[in-house]
Amino acid sequence: MARKIRVGMIGYGQMGRIHAYAYRTIPVFYDPIPFEVELTAVADVVDGVAERAVAQAGFRRGTKDWREVVAAPDVDVIDICTPNSEHLPVLEAAIVAGKDIYCEKPLCTGLADARRILALAQKAGIRHQIVSEYRFLPAVRKAKELIEQGFVGDLFHFRGVYLHSGYIDPKRPISWRLRREATGGGALVDLGPHIIDVMRHLVGDASAVLGTCSTFIPERPLAERPSEMARVDVEDAASVLLRFPGGGSGTLEVSRCATGAEDELRFEVQGSSGALSFNLMDPNWLYAYDATLPEGSRGFQRLATVQRYPAPAVAPAPKFSIGWVRSHVAAQFAFLDAIARGSVPSPSFVDAVWVHAYQDAIYRSAVAPAWTAVPTVDRE
Amino acid sequence: MARKIRVGMIGYGQMGRIHAYAYRTIPVFYDPIPFEVELTAVADVVDGVAERAVAQAGFRRGTKDWREVVAAPDVDVIDICTPNSEHLPVLEAAIVAGKDIYCEKPLCTGLADARRILALAQKAGIRHQIVSEYRFLPAVRKAKELIEQGFVGDLFHFRGVYLHSGYIDPKRPISWRLRREATGGGALVDLGPHIIDVMRHLVGDASAVLGTCSTFIPERPLAERPSEMARVDVEDAASVLLRFPGGGSGTLEVSRCATGAEDELRFEVQGSSGALSFNLMDPNWLYAYDATLPEGSRGFQRLATVQRYPAPAVAPAPKFSIGWVRSHVAAQFAFLDAIARGSVPSPSFVDAVWVHAYQDAIYRSAVAPAWTAVPTVDRE
Amino acid sequence: MARKIRVGMIGYGQMGRIHAYAYRTIPVFYDPIPFEVELTAVADVVDGVAERAVAQAGFRRGTKDWREVVAAPDVDVIDICTPNSEHLPVLEAAIVAGKDIYCEKPLCTGLADARRILALAQKAGIRHQIVSEYRFLPAVRKAKELIEQGFVGDLFHFRGVYLHSGYIDPKRPISWRLRREATGGGALVDLGPHIIDVMRHLVGDASAVLGTCSTFIPERPLAERPSEMARVDVEDAASVLLRFPGGGSGTLEVSRCATGAEDELRFEVQGSSGALSFNLMDPNWLYAYDATLPEGSRGFQRLATVQRYPAPAVAPAPKFSIGWVRSHVAAQFAFLDAIARGSVPSPSFVDAVWVHAYQDAIYRSAVAPAWTAVPTVDRE
Amino acid sequence: MARKIRVGMIGYGQMGRIHAYAYRTIPVFYDPIPFEVELTAVADVVDGVAERAVAQAGFRRGTKDWREVVAAPDVDVIDICTPNSEHLPVLEAAIVAGKDIYCEKPLCTGLADARRILALAQKAGIRHQIVSEYRFLPAVRKAKELIEQGFVGDLFHFRGVYLHSGYIDPKRPISWRLRREATGGGALVDLGPHIIDVMRHLVGDASAVLGTCSTFIPERPLAERPSEMARVDVEDAASVLLRFPGGGSGTLEVSRCATGAEDELRFEVQGSSGALSFNLMDPNWLYAYDATLPEGSRGFQRLATVQRYPAPAVAPAPKFSIGWVRSHVAAQFAFLDAIARGSVPSPSFVDAVWVHAYQDAIYRSAVAPAWTAVPTVDRE
Repeated sequence: MARKIRVGMIGYGQMGRIHAYAYRTIPVFYDPIPFEVELTAVADVVDGVAERAVAQAGFRRGTKDWREVVAAPDVDVIDICTPNSEHLPVLEAAIVAGKDIYCEKPLCTGLADARRILALAQKAGIRHQIVSEYRFLPAVRKAKELIEQGFVGDLFHFRGVYLHSGYIDPKRPISWRLRREATGGGALVDLGPHIIDVMRHLVGDASAVLGTCSTFIPERPLAERPSEMARVDVEDAASVLLRFPGGGSGTLEVSRCATGAEDELRFEVQGSSGALSFNLMDPNWLYAYDATLPEGSRGFQRLATVQRYPAPAVAPAPKFSIGWVRSHVAAQFAFLDAIARGSVPSPSFVDAVWVHAYQDAIYRSAVAPAWTAVPTVDRE
Repeated sequence: MARKIRVGMIGYGQMGRIHAYAYRTIPVFYDPIPFEVELTAVADVVDGVAERAVAQAGFRRGTKDWREVVAAPDVDVIDICTPNSEHLPVLEAAIVAGKDIYCEKPLCTGLADARRILALAQKAGIRHQIVSEYRFLPAVRKAKELIEQGFVGDLFHFRGVYLHSGYIDPKRPISWRLRREATGGGALVDLGPHIIDVMRHLVGDASAVLGTCSTFIPERPLAERPSEMARVDVEDAASVLLRFPGGGSGTLEVSRCATGAEDELRFEVQGSSGALSFNLMDPNWLYAYDATLPEGSRGFQRLATVQRYPAPAVAPAPKFSIGWVRSHVAAQFAFLDAIARGSVPSPSFVDAVWVHAYQDAIYRSAVAPAWTAVPTVDRE
Repeated sequence: MARKIRVGMIGYGQMGRIHAYAYRTIPVFYDPIPFEVELTAVADVVDGVAERAVAQAGFRRGTKDWREVVAAPDVDVIDICTPNSEHLPVLEAAIVAGKDIYCEKPLCTGLADARRILALAQKAGIRHQIVSEYRFLPAVRKAKELIEQGFVGDLFHFRGVYLHSGYIDPKRPISWRLRREATGGGALVDLGPHIIDVMRHLVGDASAVLGTCSTFIPERPLAERPSEMARVDVEDAASVLLRFPGGGSGTLEVSRCATGAEDELRFEVQGSSGALSFNLMDPNWLYAYDATLPEGSRGFQRLATVQRYPAPAVAPAPKFSIGWVRSHVAAQFAFLDAIARGSVPSPSFVDAVWVHAYQDAIYRSAVAPAWTAVPTVDRE
Repeated sequence: MARKIRVGMIGYGQMGRIHAYAYRTIPVFYDPIPFEVELTAVADVVDGVAERAVAQAGFRRGTKDWREVVAAPDVDVIDICTPNSEHLPVLEAAIVAGKDIYCEKPLCTGLADARRILALAQKAGIRHQIVSEYRFLPAVRKAKELIEQGFVGDLFHFRGVYLHSGYIDPKRPISWRLRREATGGGALVDLGPHIIDVMRHLVGDASAVLGTCSTFIPERPLAERPSEMARVDVEDAASVLLRFPGGGSGTLEVSRCATGAEDELRFEVQGSSGALSFNLMDPNWLYAYDATLPEGSRGFQRLATVQRYPAPAVAPAPKFSIGWVRSHVAAQFAFLDAIARGSVPSPSFVDAVWVHAYQDAIYRSAVAPAWTAVPTVDRE
């Protein structure tokens, strides 16, 4: 019989809605599933939001006090969707309470905290997953599979960008995302985790990084008093050179001022025997180049990864175009499936701490500047 | 206070799952919504399927007997997801029972039945919508909006194709989709409604059609006894020439043997002042060409329609890539919103009968061959 | 030692310039070449044009009288670049004079004349080639090669369009291209030969055609007196359904009012084992889909046909992007190479007459309408 | 009357052929032209090559001794197409002889030599142009024009790559391009000039650079004795971070081991009011995004730059696809036009020296590593 997994969600903003969507959708997309999700409780500090979550997403109860949810004996899993700076106390309390945790990226606002949380989680023996939904796109799954089969060969180049354009208007007011104390950084913290995670997942860890940060619009109006300006102390963009252990070369770039970009995560992997490329704005396809084919048969192939999910995914049929939200459903399914089966969820907080380690190394590398090793994170 | 709409679903196969997905998703994607959906009952003739629907999608009860659901006093809306040939009795009974109806395409298996159902529905005063989800893609919405603003001008060309490739393998056995008595036709009945509906929605009705049908694989093995062959009496593909009232010219093509196609609905609209094009495999963008711009400023523009839904759509944010299922959510929202507000749903059975009228005219035009007027369907 | 081929060009307008370009370019692009081109003479009826051709392209002499060039004993090859309606007398005279002929498409302005010219040419034993440069694009060459290797299998679909947009402005005055007596037709005569030739080259001849013609802008101002309107008696566009001997289905479309199109020749070939597609506006690539690959490895491959010409083509290197003019160079090289080697040039006037046969059948099919067999043209 | 310009070409390899092609083509593509080109003399040290150039391209005479050509009183312009390391003596002699010079990139094999040559050329008052043909692609011309009109606004990002894949095979033997003494460097010297020139042309000079170089295949077989390996002392790839005076951020990357790339020069320019992007493998279009348009009208526009050359370019018509060679014709036309009119050619050796200054700064920046200012080059 399917194990019941009782979810308590902390924070019901944009990401909370998407997670709620995914929980509601899993039973229709996957069959059979070895668990049953109950949306048991939701907490949000904003007046009326928890009630809205109850009405919209079908949580059984709502509250403004997240501690109530974390402490609830009828809750198995804590799903953290609060702003970055508020992850820490929730994580600590949830670990103490012995709950399994599904946490939005970034795990914390700095490497030291992240390491501490990981150690606590490992000691407590809870299960944990960081939200890195792009690993779960069919095209990225396929890329991973091909790389593991040796399709790319020795790595020459990894080229990754994650570009947004939401901050190009200098009249857009300051917000928590533009204050270091609330976030731990700018584009590198907001967009970096996704492209760093995809890179690590596909080609493994870099041996050293060397980056630079830019703030194109150094002050912005206050939302409440637009005539007053506040300093932006986080980067709008970061560019990073990378070196890989085997001699490969890489670049990473994140920006919130990439004019014309919608939600543009792109990567190119080029190696001694093949190449891969992907663009999230064309999410249904992976482009693959097999350099071992004879001349005349070579060329990038647009692999039909459209909606190709392995069993038990049953719907929609493997041909219908998909979008971003589908990757969230797959990520949450993977987490719940691991919980139900007693296996180790992935990507876990270990991967989350690695992301912090990259951010830390990149920020430090930009000061000197110097090629900077990424601090190692042990899997156990 | 939000009106409660109690849904009874008939048939829980692939499309039933997708509709269930959409009902579960609406509350997370739209806010506020003037209704509350209750998944009250579900019927499916196959053993165990209704039970599965209850478990997966949260219907309150399930049964093998669709008549039970249609007759239930606690059901407001009948959602029909059965195979084509089984729509008719459900439609009749649901109309008699005074239920509002949301029906998968095609409405019936022939024009005469479709006309009769429309007349019954109109007489009974029920509300009705046919599922034509592509109207609800942001890119198609944008195309409609631009055309209404005169962007395209006088129509020169409409070019529409809907291409699948699921039937290119001659070893794929015969099934109900390949038997005329169960479907009323082949690719024209299966894929035709979508591209015909998109065409009518965007550029209006053709004055005459002239088509041809092809069956590339005229016999296929029986599923149960693969050594025995059965005749395929429906078309694998149809190609159609069209004339529009103002002198415009068109082509339509549908195929289930379009090698290499996944789910490829494409259209091009070209007129005296502009052009539009779209491909469902690149669903996040509408391409628009403004011929009134000066030389040097002209060129197709990839309009950022990604996830652009009007209020009350609130999630995901208007920039994340979307796929096919999002259009189902939007279509169902439109229906339920109309029910809740007491307005007329669209596209209605009137539009569904128009699709049958096209199919009827195309099939007749192929016999002679002759330019054949599409029989008119009155809106009331 | 290389044979000297002495060229006499008749007509030095846009196409004459392009041919002159190609003659001048061959020695740089190909090596070794079994011939040496001498641009011996050029004729153009317009004052000063022949002189310009001498100065620009290096012809040895120029004249207003084409008969002089055709009769010249020091001319081996006549290259015909005049407007359509003036091909006939030049062709006749050149055949009588025993010259080999390289003739711009369309050969004549009607099927009967074309047949007569072919018979004369065959009787006289001259060598002849019609200009169908798209056969000579690397991507089309590759498509041909793949089809001959069985890549596509049994033909299901051929879908071809050739779209221009030069006539969407109703203020564009009438010209010889818009008068049937000067051209023999409209878009079908102007653009049709290219897409018909590519189709025949790739998938062979259709068994029957059924077409329709449209004139969107039925009258246009006189160039000299813009306030006076003249009737356009040729089609702006034609759309054609096709049937192939093996049961395959096709569509062809040509238009000079395809808003947004620059020079858009596109084709898709779909068969039982593979598919190909091409777009002249992306001329460096052929897209190929191998349906015999296992699921998970399928998808359109962008074959690197960029600048891939077989020896003796030596420059530029096979990787640099090419454009339209390169195909003219290859076509002329093939002609001159055949002349020098004493082999039969291809595509020849036989192919040119086939194009007329299609046009003739399409025009007739549109009147009835009726499925119309394409009159056969014998190779000898 | 048109001025006669008598060209002496030094080196007739791949690039010599392309230049010869361009000289022969100009008179057909442009009209009127204020000059007449005579291909007077050609020199190549390899036995028989000069003779071949005479036969193929129509030079009046050939020799193995370049000094003969440089000294010839009937030669006005020296066109240098030799390997990099042999530019220097030719440049010096040609300047001393007072010839105008058209020189393939890179000008020299190091910054000091390049500065010296520039000083000599300036003192001698000769006219000079470096071959940077990509400036002359219609799409790049259009990008320049738009940027000058303020389309992009304040620069946020410049992202440029030039990717080749010719060296991914470790069995490819060593050659002069892989020896620093013959070239001055690897990919940065070979591919760098193009993308650096395009960057400078479009967004101006960076204030500082910080780069890194990679050699993926550090030794290669000798061509003559494949069992013996030789060390590669130049980079296969270089990646560079850039800072622009106004605060903008940039990345440049060049590689000869970018698996899957043919001839892939790409750039993206993103600024406060707009964005541009281009890919040489899709050379007929510039993509432009106008961020000042209202929401709903925004999106990248594929500007129809196909074959859009200003007068006196007359052929082919502005709609036919073009390729790489067309840009060489335009570059050479610009040079000859400047010579004929007595104006200053551009890009000149000043621009060539800037490219060397970038290379020099990038190489130095990689050693420390350190943000390194690009040494200034004065226009006079």
